[in-house]
Amino acid sequence: MKFKTKNTSNFARASEIQLSRGKINTPAFMPVGTNGSVKGLTVEDLNETGSEIILGNTFHLMLRPGDELIKNIGGLHKFINWDKPILTDSGGFQVWSLGDLAKISEDGVKFSSPYDGKKIFMRPEDSIMIQENLGSDIIMVFDECTEYPSTYEEAKKSMELSMRWAKRCKAAHKSKSSLFGIVQGGMFKDLREESLNKLIEIDFDGIALGGLSVGESKQEKTEILEFMCDKLPENKPRYLMGVGTPEDIVEAVRYGIDMFDCVLPTRNARNGQLFTSEGVINIRNAEYKDCDDPIDVNCNNKVSQNYSRAYLNHLHRTNEMLGAMLATYHNISYYQSLMNDIRSAIKDNLFAKFIKDFYNKRNLDMPDGPI
Amino acid sequence: MKFKTKNTSNFARASEIQLSRGKINTPAFMPVGTNGSVKGLTVEDLNETGSEIILGNTFHLMLRPGDELIKNIGGLHKFINWDKPILTDSGGFQVWSLGDLAKISEDGVKFSSPYDGKKIFMRPEDSIMIQENLGSDIIMVFDECTEYPSTYEEAKKSMELSMRWAKRCKAAHKSKSSLFGIVQGGMFKDLREESLNKLIEIDFDGIALGGLSVGESKQEKTEILEFMCDKLPENKPRYLMGVGTPEDIVEAVRYGIDMFDCVLPTRNARNGQLFTSEGVINIRNAEYKDCDDPIDVNCNNKVSQNYSRAYLNHLHRTNEMLGAMLATYHNISYYQSLMNDIRSAIKDNLFAKFIKDFYNKRNLDMPDGPI
Repeated sequence: MKFKTKNTSNFARASEIQLSRGKINTPAFMPVGTNGSVKGLTVEDLNETGSEIILGNTFHLMLRPGDELIKNIGGLHKFINWDKPILTDSGGFQVWSLGDLAKISEDGVKFSSPYDGKKIFMRPEDSIMIQENLGSDIIMVFDECTEYPSTYEEAKKSMELSMRWAKRCKAAHKSKSSLFGIVQGGMFKDLREESLNKLIEIDFDGIALGGLSVGESKQEKTEILEFMCDKLPENKPRYLMGVGTPEDIVEAVRYGIDMFDCVLPTRNARNGQLFTSEGVINIRNAEYKDCDDPIDVNCNNKVSQNYSRAYLNHLHRTNEMLGAMLATYHNISYYQSLMNDIRSAIKDNLFAKFIKDFYNKRNLDMPDGPI
Repeated sequence: MKFKTKNTSNFARASEIQLSRGKINTPAFMPVGTNGSVKGLTVEDLNETGSEIILGNTFHLMLRPGDELIKNIGGLHKFINWDKPILTDSGGFQVWSLGDLAKISEDGVKFSSPYDGKKIFMRPEDSIMIQENLGSDIIMVFDECTEYPSTYEEAKKSMELSMRWAKRCKAAHKSKSSLFGIVQGGMFKDLREESLNKLIEIDFDGIALGGLSVGESKQEKTEILEFMCDKLPENKPRYLMGVGTPEDIVEAVRYGIDMFDCVLPTRNARNGQLFTSEGVINIRNAEYKDCDDPIDVNCNNKVSQNYSRAYLNHLHRTNEMLGAMLATYHNISYYQSLMNDIRSAIKDNLFAKFIKDFYNKRNLDMPDGPI
């Protein structure tokens, strides 16, 4: 992996990640392809939206259809017909989401498959091997996501376990893929700093911030970002996991984040929530029944150019699959176009203006922070 | 409408229908877009599969979103972003499918909307007006589909009502669209002939065969086709409504049919049934779990070229929307490629060989009939 920052605007940065399967312009949004498919989109669609990297879920793919099967067939890229980079999560977050159904020990996590009840023991080393079987371009360390809320002691214990696992992941990692570490430490700044320093010591290709967007307030999240932003290594990509809304993304870019993933644009599309330059609209609402306007006059993607709000309203009300397909296409296009605008603004030294316009169009106050 | 037969092979014919919105090469298959969407396909997909005309359902569109709404927005073509020809059915078949919920009188049919219970009275004149509001290129007369089985008296009474309605439809038809009549008469040859003669007398742009594929045996259907094939006017397109499987289509082409529509390739795709040159496969079957073969080695469409049976199996087993999307794309591509092969075979004077190969590949005996 080669990482090069081209332009900055205070903490915000426009950079390039060069991988053998392609270049990723950052700040970048990675659509989530849980089961080896970004729900509702073909790979042609993904390319048209300008997506340069997608995310695959280790937990789901190891269970169905199985990482060995995917490896035997030639890897995840061939399996799903996507030749650009793929980042895989480690499975840690999904295992954590199982709650009491997962038993965590020093060695790893024991849990039952939600599909067939099969008992599985997953160690950090297993997660790396599975991600290598999938043929991922960017592999994430296996970590324990710290509960929210948690006491200082709980957060410390959890973070320290994740850091020992991070070291084991690094030792187990054999392929030419890149490996990212994940900062934990809950809402406690000194623990976050300690975690970051351990990751820097182990030496990863990139640094992710984990354990955020798990229930904490916007202010708590911003405080962590603010605290971290001048401590994260400048020469490595920074990934804020599981984030978020367009507003969340713009805020995090202000604090120097380079990479994002989130199910919001795809999941909400299926429920008729469309992201636009003026905020979110629910296309099922009666007001759009006979509305001949495009989804977003400021968007020049295929869906906004060719279809009315009335047609999308009709498709969603009649539960036509095409409604989810077009809405997903629009939302991912909107996100990628937002990322492109962010990158251009940073490059053109217009990021401060971009942020003001972004909030003005939404009739929202611009939060304090670096610009 | 201009209709020109270029080549024949016994009763089979390769022709062209020229409409203001485009040319249709026949024998043609029309994908069904019930609610203003061919389920699971974008209009770009439809174009890629080689579809030259699609079908819209008057009954569904008049109820949701309403034909007046579609008219006000600029017509069905603009609404759904499809600029090639559209054929609309009359709503008669769907009303007939309501069974006892529809009351038929000389003047028309009274029924309740299955969506909101609203009472609707639909006369033949209403059906034509609705289809004109939609902006259809080929309008179908409003008819009563004869029950199967039915007595001679029932079939005669029903056919005669349909013929009186056909006359009223012709009188009500004002737009520049084409208007097709529909032959009824159940399984009774003399009634079929009487119906056809009345339609010829009224003078329509094309002739459809209705009241088939409603439960009768293959043999009964073939007997009707065989009886009709030398009586249908040569200078007009012939449309066999609601048919069918690849085998049904090949058989009907042998008896001179030009146009087909059916929900099979789209509906079955969603259930994992894929049409191939060697017959139907159920992609959910365990045998395909790790099968790296394409859907159909003889198909050069995007799905067969780029995806394995294993990936389709995985998508269908995990209920990923993309599974239905890719399967539908494959099935419609398969159907359009079949129609293209049929047309080429007729043009190249190789239709007899085509039919033999078609059945050989499927390990089926070739039915008797003209070749």
